[in-house]
Amino acid sequence: MKVTRRDLLAGAAGAVVLGKTTRAQTRTPVDPTKVRGAPTSAMGQRAPTATPQRLVRGNISSTPHQDLMGIITPSDLHFERHHAGVPEIDPANYSLLIHGMVDRPMVFSLSDLKRFPSVSRIHFLECSGNLGRVAGPETTPGLLAGLTSTSEWTGVKLATLLKEVGVQPKATWLLAEGSDAAVLTRSVPMAKALDDALIAYGQNGEAIRPEQGYPARLFLPGWEGNASVKWLRRIEVSDAPFMTREETSKYTEPFANGTARMFSFQMDARSLITYPAFPNTLAPGWVEIKGIAWTGAGKIRRVEVSTNGGATWAAAELQEPVLSMAHTRFRHLWNWTGGEAVIMSRAVDETGYVQPTRAELLKLRGPGTAIYHMNPITGWVVQATGKVIYKQEPWG
Amino acid sequence: MKVTRRDLLAGAAGAVVLGKTTRAQTRTPVDPTKVRGAPTSAMGQRAPTATPQRLVRGNISSTPHQDLMGIITPSDLHFERHHAGVPEIDPANYSLLIHGMVDRPMVFSLSDLKRFPSVSRIHFLECSGNLGRVAGPETTPGLLAGLTSTSEWTGVKLATLLKEVGVQPKATWLLAEGSDAAVLTRSVPMAKALDDALIAYGQNGEAIRPEQGYPARLFLPGWEGNASVKWLRRIEVSDAPFMTREETSKYTEPFANGTARMFSFQMDARSLITYPAFPNTLAPGWVEIKGIAWTGAGKIRRVEVSTNGGATWAAAELQEPVLSMAHTRFRHLWNWTGGEAVIMSRAVDETGYVQPTRAELLKLRGPGTAIYHMNPITGWVVQATGKVIYKQEPWG
Repeated sequence: MKVTRRDLLAGAAGAVVLGKTTRAQTRTPVDPTKVRGAPTSAMGQRAPTATPQRLVRGNISSTPHQDLMGIITPSDLHFERHHAGVPEIDPANYSLLIHGMVDRPMVFSLSDLKRFPSVSRIHFLECSGNLGRVAGPETTPGLLAGLTSTSEWTGVKLATLLKEVGVQPKATWLLAEGSDAAVLTRSVPMAKALDDALIAYGQNGEAIRPEQGYPARLFLPGWEGNASVKWLRRIEVSDAPFMTREETSKYTEPFANGTARMFSFQMDARSLITYPAFPNTLAPGWVEIKGIAWTGAGKIRRVEVSTNGGATWAAAELQEPVLSMAHTRFRHLWNWTGGEAVIMSRAVDETGYVQPTRAELLKLRGPGTAIYHMNPITGWVVQATGKVIYKQEPWG
Repeated sequence: MKVTRRDLLAGAAGAVVLGKTTRAQTRTPVDPTKVRGAPTSAMGQRAPTATPQRLVRGNISSTPHQDLMGIITPSDLHFERHHAGVPEIDPANYSLLIHGMVDRPMVFSLSDLKRFPSVSRIHFLECSGNLGRVAGPETTPGLLAGLTSTSEWTGVKLATLLKEVGVQPKATWLLAEGSDAAVLTRSVPMAKALDDALIAYGQNGEAIRPEQGYPARLFLPGWEGNASVKWLRRIEVSDAPFMTREETSKYTEPFANGTARMFSFQMDARSLITYPAFPNTLAPGWVEIKGIAWTGAGKIRRVEVSTNGGATWAAAELQEPVLSMAHTRFRHLWNWTGGEAVIMSRAVDETGYVQPTRAELLKLRGPGTAIYHMNPITGWVVQATGKVIYKQEPWG
């Protein structure tokens, strides 16, 4: 990187030739100071040389964490999971019915919803099956944990609407129903509905995206994604859960003792190293290990990083602001002196909960079918060549 | 909004017919529960019915604040201001030279910059001429103050690079030079460079947009936008400001006493009501007055709203998190009982500075040519018909 006096005499324009020139050139390079640039535009576009994409696998597409920085996920890269595709809904015909154990059943249009006092909150949303199909050594961060994304969500508090319709004293649950072809339904406890649940119509400053529930969805901060029913059309208030297909045939976790856990809504603390990871290759020297951590329990208190397969751990630096139930960036400087190394991260949340190992999780859940709410510590193997690959625990 | 028992018997699917049906229908409505939706995709798109756009005026395009929610501005709606168009820069050939009063002049490639420890910060960026061409009653919030936007910026601290090159003890200023056809240059005090200045390569989680300086720009939190030189190619360290064309012919404010103010970098506290505003029309009843406030001095401490032309003021609710040098949302419930009303907002920042009236600003600056750093209290007139229009002070 050091330049000589001769380089300097050539001036700044000359300095650019010091860059990599071995790259295949598909066209004649242009000095950008000599040509007028592109005009202003009504809507910006990404640079053609910087276009991250979601990884599409059937009815899932995942956020490419390896390509991202900061805590906000660009809306068009927010992960997708839908049960019957993305419906097309005319906002002028959208309505939300709230009925059941209420004094005044009501139907709200989208503009009705927008007339109520609004709030904005920066929160992650995570699919409960965010460790579903981990593949071999060529697993990227997006493939490993790409079903979590963070947005600034804007909407009306569900509590505000429930006050409007007059929830009856004995009501303890509600049913949320989507208007997609799956007509997805989930039961939600009244306590959550009255606490921090939103009917969200905004995402990252503008209308929610179609695949995120346009024009409006339920949003339950910190809870498994499928319960935040998208394209929400109906809420039925009741005094018991509804035991829908989605909460009996799936979204239930078998345990090692033969029982199963239902209504396990909260997503537990997890962390993910996004760099270095497959397919990076390192050179010996200082490496900034970077990643994200999140928990449905509130704020991340601490993230610890190990560069020796879990033998010792060091506290990573957390990026401010550390927001409740939002991705939190961590960074840790590491001097890689060569030789094989296993790098791992573990999150500790404000309740004191520590992200477990896979062995600890499987001991509780039983071998085999654990798909949902799997938040094990994960690691990357830095090979002696500098090549980084994924390897599932045990790493030894 | 109230529904009858008969409506309920028709069920939720029936409920949607209660919505507006007077709208011209360009095609047969489809029941979204009866057709499979669109598949997952590598990159999401906005709903065709929700596509806000920047307002383009020559070499400026402004953020449509009237269409936005929350504090993060979508990257493709961040305001633009460039002096010679948006250059196309090959990131593989990008370089940043740092020279002058330094011990070790160096050239950094983009990947060099990304190897240094990184930080992310949520900050606004505002053009110093953000009240340039206010028009008549049909002025929208975007036209009135659309040259401010908020992003999460990621990059390396300039202090880190300056440590690398070894700034000499007598150095007090630096020159930042862009690689667009304007070769824009600005002088920046060393104190700011060593404090919170970034060389930013990330915006809202991914690569910075071309019109924001891709692949890398200077970013000076809280300071007038033009000093945060885009497409940054050169930094020259010196012991005096460089007195460039951009800081002598413009970006200088004449004062009433015949003197002029140079190097007035910091953007002062300002607020903007984004709803209601032109072209909204109100019906009597409760209205949530919403808007944004920001200051280059740090955090917004308070926003006050008046609904009677400044006779009385009430504290608005601030949306958490209130971040330093970032747009802060405020909200205030107002019962509009009919009749003409002038609604206004004023920001107070953490230093105690109070956003001034236009009369106070003009008294200091002198009549006529004040273009830069104009942050007057602005207001909207709600006419007796409910129509909302812009009117410049005085409103009486």
